[in-house]
Amino acid sequence: MKRTFLKLSALVAGVALFAQPALAAAPAADAVGGGTAYILNTLLFLIGGFLVMWMAAGFAMLEAGLVRSKNTSTQCLKNIGLYSIAGLMFWVIGYSIAYPGFAEGSLGLFGIAGFPYAMQGVGEADLDTGYSVASDWFFQMVFCATTASIVSGTVAERVKIVPFFIFVTVLTGIIYPVVVSWEWGAGYLDSVHGFSDFAGSTLVHSTGGWAALMGAIIIGSRAGRYGADGKVNVFPGANIPLATLGTFILWLGWFGFNGASQLAMGTVGDVSDVSKIFVNTNMAAAGGVVVAIILTQILYKKADVTMALNGALAGLVSITAEPLAPSVGQSILIGGIGGAIVVFAVPMLDKFKIDDVVGAIPVHLFAGIWGTMIVPLTNSDATYGGQFVGVALTAVWVSLASAVVWYALKLTIGVRPSEEAEIGGLDHAEIGVEAYPEFARTT
Amino acid sequence: MKRTFLKLSALVAGVALFAQPALAAAPAADAVGGGTAYILNTLLFLIGGFLVMWMAAGFAMLEAGLVRSKNTSTQCLKNIGLYSIAGLMFWVIGYSIAYPGFAEGSLGLFGIAGFPYAMQGVGEADLDTGYSVASDWFFQMVFCATTASIVSGTVAERVKIVPFFIFVTVLTGIIYPVVVSWEWGAGYLDSVHGFSDFAGSTLVHSTGGWAALMGAIIIGSRAGRYGADGKVNVFPGANIPLATLGTFILWLGWFGFNGASQLAMGTVGDVSDVSKIFVNTNMAAAGGVVVAIILTQILYKKADVTMALNGALAGLVSITAEPLAPSVGQSILIGGIGGAIVVFAVPMLDKFKIDDVVGAIPVHLFAGIWGTMIVPLTNSDATYGGQFVGVALTAVWVSLASAVVWYALKLTIGVRPSEEAEIGGLDHAEIGVEAYPEFARTT
Amino acid sequence: MKRTFLKLSALVAGVALFAQPALAAAPAADAVGGGTAYILNTLLFLIGGFLVMWMAAGFAMLEAGLVRSKNTSTQCLKNIGLYSIAGLMFWVIGYSIAYPGFAEGSLGLFGIAGFPYAMQGVGEADLDTGYSVASDWFFQMVFCATTASIVSGTVAERVKIVPFFIFVTVLTGIIYPVVVSWEWGAGYLDSVHGFSDFAGSTLVHSTGGWAALMGAIIIGSRAGRYGADGKVNVFPGANIPLATLGTFILWLGWFGFNGASQLAMGTVGDVSDVSKIFVNTNMAAAGGVVVAIILTQILYKKADVTMALNGALAGLVSITAEPLAPSVGQSILIGGIGGAIVVFAVPMLDKFKIDDVVGAIPVHLFAGIWGTMIVPLTNSDATYGGQFVGVALTAVWVSLASAVVWYALKLTIGVRPSEEAEIGGLDHAEIGVEAYPEFARTT
Repeated sequence: MKRTFLKLSALVAGVALFAQPALAAAPAADAVGGGTAYILNTLLFLIGGFLVMWMAAGFAMLEAGLVRSKNTSTQCLKNIGLYSIAGLMFWVIGYSIAYPGFAEGSLGLFGIAGFPYAMQGVGEADLDTGYSVASDWFFQMVFCATTASIVSGTVAERVKIVPFFIFVTVLTGIIYPVVVSWEWGAGYLDSVHGFSDFAGSTLVHSTGGWAALMGAIIIGSRAGRYGADGKVNVFPGANIPLATLGTFILWLGWFGFNGASQLAMGTVGDVSDVSKIFVNTNMAAAGGVVVAIILTQILYKKADVTMALNGALAGLVSITAEPLAPSVGQSILIGGIGGAIVVFAVPMLDKFKIDDVVGAIPVHLFAGIWGTMIVPLTNSDATYGGQFVGVALTAVWVSLASAVVWYALKLTIGVRPSEEAEIGGLDHAEIGVEAYPEFARTT
Repeated sequence: MKRTFLKLSALVAGVALFAQPALAAAPAADAVGGGTAYILNTLLFLIGGFLVMWMAAGFAMLEAGLVRSKNTSTQCLKNIGLYSIAGLMFWVIGYSIAYPGFAEGSLGLFGIAGFPYAMQGVGEADLDTGYSVASDWFFQMVFCATTASIVSGTVAERVKIVPFFIFVTVLTGIIYPVVVSWEWGAGYLDSVHGFSDFAGSTLVHSTGGWAALMGAIIIGSRAGRYGADGKVNVFPGANIPLATLGTFILWLGWFGFNGASQLAMGTVGDVSDVSKIFVNTNMAAAGGVVVAIILTQILYKKADVTMALNGALAGLVSITAEPLAPSVGQSILIGGIGGAIVVFAVPMLDKFKIDDVVGAIPVHLFAGIWGTMIVPLTNSDATYGGQFVGVALTAVWVSLASAVVWYALKLTIGVRPSEEAEIGGLDHAEIGVEAYPEFARTT
Repeated sequence: MKRTFLKLSALVAGVALFAQPALAAAPAADAVGGGTAYILNTLLFLIGGFLVMWMAAGFAMLEAGLVRSKNTSTQCLKNIGLYSIAGLMFWVIGYSIAYPGFAEGSLGLFGIAGFPYAMQGVGEADLDTGYSVASDWFFQMVFCATTASIVSGTVAERVKIVPFFIFVTVLTGIIYPVVVSWEWGAGYLDSVHGFSDFAGSTLVHSTGGWAALMGAIIIGSRAGRYGADGKVNVFPGANIPLATLGTFILWLGWFGFNGASQLAMGTVGDVSDVSKIFVNTNMAAAGGVVVAIILTQILYKKADVTMALNGALAGLVSITAEPLAPSVGQSILIGGIGGAIVVFAVPMLDKFKIDDVVGAIPVHLFAGIWGTMIVPLTNSDATYGGQFVGVALTAVWVSLASAVVWYALKLTIGVRPSEEAEIGGLDHAEIGVEAYPEFARTT
């Protein structure tokens, strides 16, 4: 998802088109006109955009299924709220920071293109770019929202609504867009280090993961989660089919996430690449599922369904940094290792008393790093050194910035509800609407 | 969504195409051939159509989540049944009434083009219109079904299945198509008053809203809802995550609802407009959510999740009359005011003892009127007078016709179950299948 | 969905394109260039593919809603697992068996094209076929997964995870691909008998149905399902709104299933056909719903929601063998009869003590046979004799092969959990994760 590449290819296509009358008839039969290519490129953004928008519902269902029923309404509210805030903030300032138009020769660490982002008027299509700018903005916006969705799962069940939404505001307005500017905005990581992250294993998923990790540490674990004797108290999710639905929604949305990150389908080559990405994305997820099932069956003599779901997601995150270059077999392997990471990392986090309610840190952060670091295996344009710089710089910036915001919130308005409110459930304390008011509870 | 406009633009495009050989090579590079434009226009209807079809699932989940569990199976049956009936009726007669081909100079109040609608045979494409007629019929049909979905939520929990389905039959076969004929069918409102309703804030949403309001009044409120002392007894919805899912489904579907109402994407200008509509639609919903959250937080010290969900829907309804002309900022404002309308209107309806189970009247009727009346602010082709006539005429016709049907049903086969059946739940009385048979209930 | 046809039409289109410079300007305005057609054909596979992939979630929700809550997590795991296994197996060997490239004059009963399937490298588009091979593979793969999904519903609640997954491995790797090779792979049924099955009423749905039937017989019924006195004990599904959601998901996905089985939308005629298929598919489902509601209302004085849901699915299966040739009225009739089949067949199966948890055998097998046998009514290329041979050969092969596998599993690792484990629920015995741990149960 590198906007700079697209412009170049559009330019080349434009040259070819103007030269067309001089060509023989035969090649022209396969050529696609500039207007048609513009429409098809835009259509890819629109389809990809609505598929990724749908991932917001996927995160909402996944999290609603994995929290306890006393916090389910809160989780629903947080998810629809964060998606809305992400849209508003990405318009007010986010997009302008993400695509600042760095000057030639600048270091490309921070810039801003004016705000709120002045999208073109109706019909004033930007023909030079080869797609509608509004369609591009829409597609980029839903990625921003995805980053925020990752955080809400980890810190569920013990953060108040208002500080959570304030954190989302900063994350989607500043923290995430800065990371994007370094790479897709043709900044430091792209121009200096040749960092490669096709659809955002690092830019989206690790960013969300670091922000979530800082939240989990600074907010602390849920009341009663870790006993004084080191015992981990399991708080099972209240609704496994909802979590399953959420995972399927995310899997579906990921075809848009990775596929449309090709950024163009107005040529035979581009649409073939999008097709390849669909296959690889699917197979990486399949690999993650199968590995997670086999491992849990071996380790625990049970096929843990939540591990299988997270295995799918880890497979998807793993292939996101490079869904085009690998062969199908390589994709299965990359995704399968992602699934294994989840199976081992989930209990490991509990060892460190890091309380990640839905397993978002293993899925998005650890598998995101894995996917990013393995890119050079299949894409010779990337280097292990360049990939490491991208991972490390994102880690430093997002962790620091997130920690500052979470701490500031903790010291001012406070991030946690009272222990009484937490034990009674956030739905009662913060929302006033129970998720399942009629169902008698065993706990 | 004005079919007359499309034919004109297709004609213009056709002229340009035939003239093409005489043009220089450069402009031709951006031109889209007639066959390609036909395919792309048709594809827009197909994608938009399946997205709006998906809204039927959204209404089903929203309503299944907001009724009490003793009526949930009934609500599921009603929703899949009404979607099916709408399809059948729109084929038998609805489409023929909606697009009667009014004679030049006629008043354009009622016409009929023959029935059942004789869709073209396979492959006999109507090249003059610039799209497949079957794709257009499909897209129009799912709008018809949406109108019926709106009603089912308001009158839930106390109307029997058979009279409900009979009402849906008349609504989708006659009442709604007549309204459509006045505007999108190039009838009275379009030709005489210049009424403007891009994707149906009035034609679809207010029509559904008036039909629902008449139902709520004539059927009466649920047993025990309003105490003799004016007290409103709250009947909380049984499954908030399902309602959340329904809202996300509707939000997703709305990209088809508004975006494909552009009716064409076979030109660079059209697909750019569709993109703009996607952005505005999304941002209006975001505005509605954020305003609803802030207002409920201020008014009730809680962020009411059902208000947030209805805020999203109200934002979407508000922007539907004109999703293209506004700037992004204007769209946020239009949607935000829609969200505010819901927060204030929901308790107001209860003051009048109008029992709207899911809040469909504030969302679809009130926000639909708001969205329609504000069109002239951003679209200079519309006038406040013309908009008022459209709103008022729809109000009179739909209210009268709906009232007649509801009353006729009340006086003949009856609309309500016995009070015993209502208190025991419609699932037991009418369906014989409990929604959640294994979950012990607290009530 | 006959690949042989597509290649022919692509060839014809290619000839027309090369001849294009000699044509007059007017026809050229409607012509679509080869590159554009390639993109549009590929896009159809991608959109159709993600819609059919989404059906995996539909089956998961349908089944999760119709089993008892003690087996819900297991059903979720089985569904995400089978979808993953299907993808892997279709890559390792399935696709190579399905499309073996039968030699001219061979009987076309079994072949294999080399494995794992060597999908083309990135950008090496196969221009001769007129679409990206990766997009085609993706589309074919999700059909393979659908076949496996059908089985999991019938044999739910009493088969262990490991033997189930082994069965899925053989079904998706061998049994199903062999059936496909006979027809879409241009083998025996296609070349010798002129068998016609547009999108798979027999190839997909009956195949899944026969495999499910053999499983139901060999595994046996659920503990306590049939009393010694012939009494059928009803085990109601635990979550009707989830089953409703699943049905809507399947309905939505079916637009991809049938629509994209046109295999091309790069011409005006093809996209018009896809549109017609959308309409017919929708109307057959609507017919199935309405007939099921009316029949259950008459027979049982209740409108059984699960019958309405299965009526929709039976309507969809019925129209799948030929969604293009019928008129709208014929489609409603074909789907309506499918709905009637379900209403009568569900209790009939219980007479034979065949325990089909979700009704998949009536829906997929019986309605699949009905849809296949009625093709000659509307498609004069098909004969009743040819259709019968296709139905019968599929029955013999799939039943025998499935029986062998189920028996082999029964005799070796065993297919059923202990009766104690079954009564306690598979979620406890096999998964270790309860689906709804907090909800107190009445049973």
